[in-house]
Amino acid sequence: MQPKYKIWLEQGDTYVFGDGLVLILERIDRCGSINQAARQIGMSYRHAWGTIRKAEEALGYELLHRRVGGDDGGGAELTAAGKEMLRNYQAFRQDIDRKIQESFHRCFAGEQKFTSGSEAETYK
Amino acid sequence: MQPKYKIWLEQGDTYVFGDGLVLILERIDRCGSINQAARQIGMSYRHAWGTIRKAEEALGYELLHRRVGGDDGGGAELTAAGKEMLRNYQAFRQDIDRKIQESFHRCFAGEQKFTSGSEAETYK
Repeated sequence: MQPKYKIWLEQGDTYVFGDGLVLILERIDRCGSINQAARQIGMSYRHAWGTIRKAEEALGYELLHRRVGGDDGGGAELTAAGKEMLRNYQAFRQDIDRKIQESFHRCFAGEQKFTSGSEAETYK
Repeated sequence: MQPKYKIWLEQGDTYVFGDGLVLILERIDRCGSINQAARQIGMSYRHAWGTIRKAEEALGYELLHRRVGGDDGGGAELTAAGKEMLRNYQAFRQDIDRKIQESFHRCFAGEQKFTSGSEAETYK
């Protein structure tokens, strides 16, 4: 038995930031292009850009600088605030992941039924 | 801005235990009847019983004793193992809830943008 979860951030009742957006932003940070980043994760440019715009609107600041034209045909890079948001979220995500595992093992430690099999056996 | 999440337990890739099942079991523990418990939370008897049976199968032990017939027309009560599972899950859930809030506030403490408004203002 193992814990599973989904986590995300909302502003009011609107999705603002989560694993999907992190995936896009990490790629953009690496390859400098929304188009390439979207293609790499099998997402349409329209969907990727829409998700970023919605987050920017909810946050009240820009996550990306877009460079239009130039030798490389334009591109995008994370703003300082975008980088900070990404870093904070990554730290949050990693911390939660560890805490959920710890809490699960502590809360269910008494139940021999859950600990009698190895992890590998759980997936038979 | 605030963190939102869903959490549940799986065995292999199958849902075993989560907030929905907890809701049913808590009600059964209070009213002693699957039928009444299901009605109270707007769930069909069939669905409630199906969810419990699936969890029992995955866990390898019974969560409920069913009493058939008698003056009260039958009923159900949690087994000792069912009570322990419910208690452990409630403790786990409560712990995670607190940890997510703590981690969120710590990880995003530097972002003045998230802390400039009061909670009430966030929901305008």
